Formats: sequence, structure tokens, C-alpha cells
Amino acid sequence: MPIVKFVPQNKEIDVAAGTNLLKAADDAGLYIEGDCAGKGTCGKCRVKVIGGADEPPTTAESKLLSESELKAGWVLACQRNIEKDCTVEVPVQKDAHTRKTTLAGGVENLDVEPAVEKIAVKLNRPAVKDQTADLERLLAELEKGELHVKPRELAGFPSMLRKNSYSVTAAISGKRILSIEPGDTTEQLYGVAFDIGTTTIVGSLLDLKTASVIAVAAVTNPQNIYGADVISRITHASQAEDGLKQLQDKVIEAVNKIIHDLLRQTKIARDRIYEIIAVGNTTMSHLFMGIDPTYLAPAPFIPAYSKALEVEAAELGIRINPAGRVIFLPNIAGYVGSDTVGVILAAELDLPGDNCAAIDIGTNGELVLRANDKLMACSTAAGPAFEGAQIKQGMRAAAGAIETVSYINDGIELKMIDDAPACGICGSGLIDAASALLDAGLVEPSGRFVNPEENPDKIPAQFKDRLRRGNGGYEFVLVSGKESDTGEDIVISQGDLRELQLAKGAINAGLMILLKEADISENDLDRVLLAGAFGNYVRRESALGIGLLPQIPAEKIIAIGNAAGDGARMALASLTMRKRAFELSKTVKHMELSTRPDFQEFFVDALPFRKMQ
Amino acid sequence: MPIVKFVPQNKEIDVAAGTNLLKAADDAGLYIEGDCAGKGTCGKCRVKVIGGADEPPTTAESKLLSESELKAGWVLACQRNIEKDCTVEVPVQKDAHTRKTTLAGGVENLDVEPAVEKIAVKLNRPAVKDQTADLERLLAELEKGELHVKPRELAGFPSMLRKNSYSVTAAISGKRILSIEPGDTTEQLYGVAFDIGTTTIVGSLLDLKTASVIAVAAVTNPQNIYGADVISRITHASQAEDGLKQLQDKVIEAVNKIIHDLLRQTKIARDRIYEIIAVGNTTMSHLFMGIDPTYLAPAPFIPAYSKALEVEAAELGIRINPAGRVIFLPNIAGYVGSDTVGVILAAELDLPGDNCAAIDIGTNGELVLRANDKLMACSTAAGPAFEGAQIKQGMRAAAGAIETVSYINDGIELKMIDDAPACGICGSGLIDAASALLDAGLVEPSGRFVNPEENPDKIPAQFKDRLRRGNGGYEFVLVSGKESDTGEDIVISQGDLRELQLAKGAINAGLMILLKEADISENDLDRVLLAGAFGNYVRRESALGIGLLPQIPAEKIIAIGNAAGDGARMALASLTMRKRAFELSKTVKHMELSTRPDFQEFFVDALPFRKMQ
Repeated sequence: MPIVKFVPQNKEIDVAAGTNLLKAADDAGLYIEGDCAGKGTCGKCRVKVIGGADEPPTTAESKLLSESELKAGWVLACQRNIEKDCTVEVPVQKDAHTRKTTLAGGVENLDVEPAVEKIAVKLNRPAVKDQTADLERLLAELEKGELHVKPRELAGFPSMLRKNSYSVTAAISGKRILSIEPGDTTEQLYGVAFDIGTTTIVGSLLDLKTASVIAVAAVTNPQNIYGADVISRITHASQAEDGLKQLQDKVIEAVNKIIHDLLRQTKIARDRIYEIIAVGNTTMSHLFMGIDPTYLAPAPFIPAYSKALEVEAAELGIRINPAGRVIFLPNIAGYVGSDTVGVILAAELDLPGDNCAAIDIGTNGELVLRANDKLMACSTAAGPAFEGAQIKQGMRAAAGAIETVSYINDGIELKMIDDAPACGICGSGLIDAASALLDAGLVEPSGRFVNPEENPDKIPAQFKDRLRRGNGGYEFVLVSGKESDTGEDIVISQGDLRELQLAKGAINAGLMILLKEADISENDLDRVLLAGAFGNYVRRESALGIGLLPQIPAEKIIAIGNAAGDGARMALASLTMRKRAFELSKTVKHMELSTRPDFQEFFVDALPFRKMQ
Repeated sequence: MPIVKFVPQNKEIDVAAGTNLLKAADDAGLYIEGDCAGKGTCGKCRVKVIGGADEPPTTAESKLLSESELKAGWVLACQRNIEKDCTVEVPVQKDAHTRKTTLAGGVENLDVEPAVEKIAVKLNRPAVKDQTADLERLLAELEKGELHVKPRELAGFPSMLRKNSYSVTAAISGKRILSIEPGDTTEQLYGVAFDIGTTTIVGSLLDLKTASVIAVAAVTNPQNIYGADVISRITHASQAEDGLKQLQDKVIEAVNKIIHDLLRQTKIARDRIYEIIAVGNTTMSHLFMGIDPTYLAPAPFIPAYSKALEVEAAELGIRINPAGRVIFLPNIAGYVGSDTVGVILAAELDLPGDNCAAIDIGTNGELVLRANDKLMACSTAAGPAFEGAQIKQGMRAAAGAIETVSYINDGIELKMIDDAPACGICGSGLIDAASALLDAGLVEPSGRFVNPEENPDKIPAQFKDRLRRGNGGYEFVLVSGKESDTGEDIVISQGDLRELQLAKGAINAGLMILLKEADISENDLDRVLLAGAFGNYVRRESALGIGLLPQIPAEKIIAIGNAAGDGARMALASLTMRKRAFELSKTVKHMELSTRPDFQEFFVDALPFRKMQ
């Protein structure tokens, strides 16, 4: 069997001859970026075969890689099958998680009301005069009435009890003993809140005694090898043999990786984690629980379930205390998942208050509106453009991503994350770029580049060389190959602008529908909350500039950080918050947009880049 | 690796050189009898090496096998290690289970009140106007309020629902959905009641709609390779590496074998079994659940738990519906287990009634006394003599076992099970034999054979040749080698009589203690119930004759069949009975005998064979 060695990660794997290189990398535990599920259209899975590739480039490679790259041995991993031993260089992934993890802990004061209680007891020694069984002896001392306990928790209990002079601690959740531990372990009471994003998974370790976040870790959702968006994943789950299992295995593996990282950071023992609360969109929750998501995809978009599901960690293969409870917060409807429940909880939208819209833009866009104390929510198929996917040189918000683009002093100024040499553009940079190009007069409100051949006088001299004809229409060069990290020009293409228009049009139209249903106008909005990393880093002026947000004063637009994750943390820290979350799936009114004729009108109306006055 | 072939079962197995032959047979799935856990003292694991054994006989073999047997290639499996390919003949086990299985169903009219309910529903098709999730749609139609459901039960639900035109059946237990099934399956509702004996495991398949027993199956408890009695098994669980796991695996394997047999007999689908109720002694319940039984063995004999434990079938690896509930009824104390709870339930001793003693003689002996409407129970270390173990030519109640021995017309008359040629003696035959030898004047009430050398005139002429000196004292030849199945003389030895005395003394003394505690005499007993296969087949006159039972009229002695198993069936069929069983562990007063000085007095007093007048 051929052996593939991946450098610089230094991982080797034996594979059957003919194995796809992307799959081999995945089997070796390496995450390779990619948005197209191996179709050869996104060009992001580029790797370098040391010594060059045997076979000539495929059509996809010829299209997506430059001649010099091809010569140097670059290939698309998804296009290549392994026939013999080889060494493959995998570009080191820039850390795209820093921004998502540093956002965690946005809610500073969590209520302390954990679902798990720990009680330390010292039992009387048994004797012929008192032959009470060990468990019944413990139950009597706990004074909690009838408690359910599983054989697994009792397996080693008798010896442990005697080795520890009859001092033990019970971890109790409701009417269940989760764990019986030697000595007094009441100080060790932990849980993890997970935000299972389509693109990124973030976990926060909480000390449940104090409700404080003591560590945060994140990984790329490894399901991305099956596609960047939820529809690709649903398709894989429905159609591939064992597809559902593969997707579930991927997310559980990622969750275990995060837990491992959290334990490494804090030196806490694995078995002292007793609860996990997870949020995520509906597709993520189905895949996490291993439940068929097939009927989420076609109209009428029916999930298998909405309510919160609870399962033992051991049953899912999640490596915390085996009896630990894993609870995925409830879904609201087809594409409005528990991540939105988390946003509502974090922003306290389920309580009476002002007229407030919350927008969570990730790979999907979810909108919530509280108007006259009623709650409505909807989901828009924004697509993954804001995560940098489907964008020619799009990338996630990692070092070297162009994040701000300004039109200042008749010039275009750029700022890259970490001030690193540019290697692509992230979601907030894309919005900035569109806004700046509008300001510079290079893009028309319709979203089209000004045609430099028809209207040469409309193009300022300093941009004449930078607005040029590309493969699919005009494109604007943000960074020349001489200055970029990749050696290639970094451009905004006409296609990129179109992707952005579709995404912003969808979100904008969704919000308009909610306002219409609530019978209020955008002027009646007291606040617009932007949730998620994207919302945190996007420039409000640019978002307003391209018309992504309704035309309200910028000071009413407030970034609230990773609110979905905050909601998960709140539900983990407090039983009261958790109960509120459970109720939300019933009390939020869901608006299905996709089949409404007025949505199409709003959508078309919202496609142009409209600048606020 | 050497290959061992077992005939006539025709099983082959590769083993590491040096593997013990008994272990190899076990690995090949063959049950070989044996009582001494491979110590080479019981001589029951005899097998024949085709072509003869390589090595000379071991000391144990020389002692336990005749010269002609050794010549013919017979060896003790426990004494031999496999060094090269060989073929081994394993004597086909006579069926020792018929009597235990035909006893099942002793309680004819079980209450019908199953814990699992099935509801068939037809759901409305979802539409854009009604986007309720599949599960919530089902829950609304079931009208049972909040029900808990695990992800596993939902995994394939969406497709199944649509393939079956939205007709499904839910199996519900308490607040839990165990299973969602296609179409209307309300007619298919089954459970299995298990009696997990130290020696034999019996399972009864019940149709829970009618509470009728529709099939019964039994196997030898395969834990017997680790010893015949509970103490050997506890020792193995405590001391051998992975010993507890091995013992649990054995019993679960046996349970699965029985389930397989029940399904084969009835053509019922595995997933339509939703509950298992098991009873067994305290050691069996610990091993079944995989819980350390170490502290049951030494004083003060503390079980890890007493209450009923419940666990999902899938967690134990029991192959019924994966969500099926497995409940082991509660223990009462150290050596009084849920089998006794079953006896009490079956005999309705927990209800007010006459003064009644129940005796369940298996490998252990448990006694229950209801006197003045109070319940007491105790356990006696009767040892496995009544199952034919520790008896020189003892065997279980299978074809060819001497089961009745009568002193009639100055002669000894025998009857073998199935009228087959004699090959050993079973428990009831042993009691009969002792009683007959007492009647014939060959055995003194002290339990000693009359010494034919000292008192030649006391030996009737017809027995002069049959009472002879053996290896360990005198012995009486019941069947000569010419007539026996084995070609060997079948005898009752002085040692056998001693074993019987110890067993009967223990039981008798236990009963006396209970009577003393209740402050009544044996004359106050209205009934004595004999539970179990042994109780069913023992001749009351003989049991009275040797003083095993208190001196009451024979008509007050009533065999009630496999009452422990009946109790399990009752608790399976009826929730009310189950609740009664759960209460019993708290309401029965346990008497610990082993540390009472008066027990020793009663015991010594009860050792002689006392004939009733």
C-alpha cells in the first residue's frame, strides 16, 4: 500500500492505491480548507507534491492554479488519487479561531445555579449489626430520597469506598447520581458550553461553582470536507453510504479535540466535567445527534425534532464523565436553530423590552425581532460569503486576511489581520471593499463595475491599472502579486460582488419581512444587535454603506459578540436560564421566508448597494 | 498455533500453544461440566483425546480416572495444556434443563398490566403552513405530555415516517419513548423474565398483551468454568485480572443465547422485546450488572447495592430492542437475593395470611417465614450438594440420573430419569438414597454407615456385597458397573452422606432460627412451600425421613415449582406486582445466621438424620 507523508506536520499514513489525496489527509487527521466538497471548483485544497505530480494537471487544476504553481508541484488535493509513495506539503493553516475564541465570555456575570450538585459524605462502617448495602448507606446519608444510579457508576464503588475510609462525594443531577468519587471532590465541578458552527466549533470550559469561563478552545468544523454549507452536508448525510455517521463522527471528534485542549490548558480531570450544553443551527444539531437531516433541505423544511435532546456523554463517545449529560438546546424551526435560541437568551430578547432586531451572520443568517414584546425569527440563505467562502480569494479571518478597505484621499487603503502580508480577503474586508469601491465610484449601485472601456473617463487615473478584465468580467486589484504573501494579485471580482449582493439582499429582505409582520418600520427599531465574530468586526459604516443593515443611525447598531455561545454558557451555568431556553422553541414565532412571494420582492429590491445618505 | 477440533460438536479453534484445554473448549463455545474451577478435584471435565494423550496422567487424573479410561485416552480437560493439533471428544451433555424449563409457567394467571404501552398513530403531513418537526408532530398526536426520547430512536425516524405514509407506532414506558416503529405494531409487545441461577439460567418469553408465557429456554450458567458456587465466582471477580468482566460477559452471553433460542422458537423480531426482568441471588445480580461483589464474601457480607437496578439493554450488550429496559429485582441482603423476592411474590407471602415457610434449595438455600403476618428471610450455605455437586457421582437432574431410591421388600429399588441406564445420582436421588439406607438400617442416624466388620450381623445378607470399603470410608453400591451407563459402579460414599448432612443441617437450622425469632414452633406452621426444581422432585417422605424438613404432616408440604422465576414473570407482566417487588427489599427482615451462636447449636443439632415417627 502506498505511504503518503505530509509535511511539515510530519504525519504518515498507509492508504489503498487509488485513494483520494484529500481523503488521505483527512484520515491522517489534517484539516485541509475547502468549500466545494471535492468538486474541484473552489481551489482551496491546494497542496504541493514534493518532486512534482506524476499526472498532468486536471481541467480544474489548469483553471485554478497558475502555470508557475503547476510547475512547482502544486495540485488540488481533491483532484488527485494516490498511486505510489509520496511526500505532500500542506500549507500551514493560519489560525482562523483567535477572533472566535477571544469573543467568548461576552456575558460577564453568569448566574450561578448549576444543574449538578456535589455532596461529600462520610459513611458509617458496615457491621453485622448494620448490614445495609453500600449504595443504600450512601443514599441514606445523601438524604435526597430515591435516586437513580446506573450499574456503571457502582462497578468499583465498594472497593473505592473502603480504600477511602468511607469518605465519598456524589455528583447528583435531578434524580440521578452521575458519579461517586473518592474523598471530597466538591470543589471540582465543571461543564463545557459548545457553539457548533458550520465553519467553526468553539468550546468554553466553565467552573460551575462560580459560573466563570476558565478556558476557551476552537477548531474548524471538520465536516467541511463534505462541503462548506449545510446543504452540502445534508446531501452527504442523505445520499452517501454511512454519510450521516461520517458527519457525526467528525463533529464528535472535533468536540473531543476541544475538550482535550481545554483539559490541557487547565489541568482539570476529564471525569470532573459533568455537563455539556451545545447550540448550533438545526443541521448541526441533527448531525451532532446522528439524526437524519434529509427533510430539512427540501420544502417544507421539516426537522426531525425541535425540543432539546439530552443524551449521556458515553453514548455519543464524548470523553467527559461517562454519565455526563449532553444537552443540545432546542431548535425553533427548519433553519432557525438553537444558536438563535442562544442569541435570544444572551440578548434577553425573551423578556419584555425595546424594539430590537438581532442579526447573527455566519454561514447562514438568522434574524430575530422583538417588537411590542413579541418574538419572531427567520432564517435567510445568506450563503457562506461572509465566512470568505464562494469568494474568489476569500478566506476566514486569519492572519493576512484583508479586513479593512477604505477609500481615503482618493486612494484605497488596506489593513490586514496581524499586519501580515495579504493572502486573501475575509467577510468584513469584502463588505469594506464593496463600500470603498462604491465610494470611489468604481462600482455602480447595481453592483456592476463601471465599464472602463465604455466609460474611461469615470475611472480615476490612479485606478486605471487596477480595474481590469478578468476571467469572469471585470475585477479590481487590491494587492499586487509583488506585495502579496502568495505572489499572486489579490482581487475583488464581479462574481465576488454578486455573491455579496445575494447575501446582503437575503439578510436585508428577511429583516424587512419581520418588520412588516410586526407592523413597524426600520425607524421604530431602538437597537440592531450584531451577533457573531462577523458582526463584531464588520465596520458599521460599511455595512450601512452597502445597505446590509437598515438605514438607522450607526450608534443604534451594537455588536454583542458570540451571543449564540454566550447563550450556551448561560444555559450551562444556570438552570433557570436553561428552562427559559427550553421554552423558547415554543414561544418564538417562526417566519418561513422561502415560500413567501413578498420575500422575493424585498430580495430583488435589496440587491442593489444602496448608500445611506 | 495448534488447532483443536472438538467432536461430535465439530468445532475447531486455533489456540496459543500451552492453552488449557478447558479454556479452549470454553473459547470454542462448548460448556464442559465441572465444579472445582479447574482445580482437578471434581473429575467432571473428562474428555477423550482421540489417539491418546501425549503426556502421562497427572496425579489428579490418576486419582479420578480408572486405568481403562486412561488407556482409552480420557483426560481431565482442566489438567491438560494444548501443545499441538488434536481432536478431542466431548461427551454430549445430557439435557439438565428440561425439568427447569417445564416447571416454568407455574403461576397460571398473571395479571396483565405491562409497563410498556404501544400507541399507533397516523400523523398529518407537514406543509409550509404547518412546519412542526416530526417528533413534535408525533408527541402532539400521542397526547402523553412531555416524553423523553433518545437520539438513537430518532436517527432514522424522518425517512421511516415518510416511507410509511406517516403511520407509526410508539412504544412508551413511563415518560420515555423506547421505540418508534413503522406502521401499526401494537400487537407485538414482548418481554423476557430471567431466573439467573448459579447453575442454570432460565428465560421465559411473555406476550405482554396477554401476560402469557409463549416460550421457555434454559442454559447452564457458563460462569461455571470459574467454579460451581458463588464464593468461587466472587473470588474470581475479586482476584483475577478482568475477572469481573469475564463473569459478566459469560452471563450476558448466556442471556443472549436464551433470547436467540426464544426468538427461534417463536419467530418474533428481536426489537419487539422491550423489557427484561431478572431475578437471581445477590452474587448473580452483582455479576450480571458488572458490579464488584468482593465484600459479599467476608463478614459482614455487604452487597454493593440492594435496590432494583435498571439499565438499557444496549448498555449491557443484551440483544433485544436497544432501548429495552433491563431490571434486576432488588436484593434483600448479603445472601438473600431477588430470587427470594421472586419466591415471596409468587407465593404472595407479602400479603397477610397463614403461617408459612418457603424453602428455595438451589446451589444456595434461602428460607422465608411469614409468621403472624411478618416476613423474615435468611440464607444458608447449603452448598451445591442438592445440585449434585461435591457428590462423588453426583450429577444434575438429567437422563440417567438416579432420582428415586426406595427400600421396598427388603431391597433397594431405583428409578432413573427417563428410565435411561444409570450414570450418576441427582439431588433428590441422594436424599432418597440416604432415607432408604436409613430405612434399610445400613446407615445410622449419626450419618455413619454401619460398620460391616464390627457389626456383620447388622448387614442384611442381600446387601453384604454392596456395602464395601472405598477410598474414603465405606460406600454403598447402588448400581454395578455391569448395569451402569458408564461401566463403573455407582455408589453413595460416606463423604456423600456427610455432604448431605451439612446441607440439610444448614437448612434445618436456618428454619429453626426463623421459627425461634417469630416465637412459633414447627407445629404452628400451616404450610411449608418447596420452591425450585429440587423442591418439585424431592420426595416429601424422604425429605422428612432424613430430617431436612421440620416434622410436620407431609400434606402440609407443597411444591410450588420455580417460584423465583414465577416472581420474575409476575413482575414483568404487571406493574403492580413489580412495585410490590421493589418494596420487598425494605419490608422483609433479614436474619444473618452465620454470626449467631445459636445457629451453630441448631446446626450441630440438625446434622443427624432424624427419622420422623
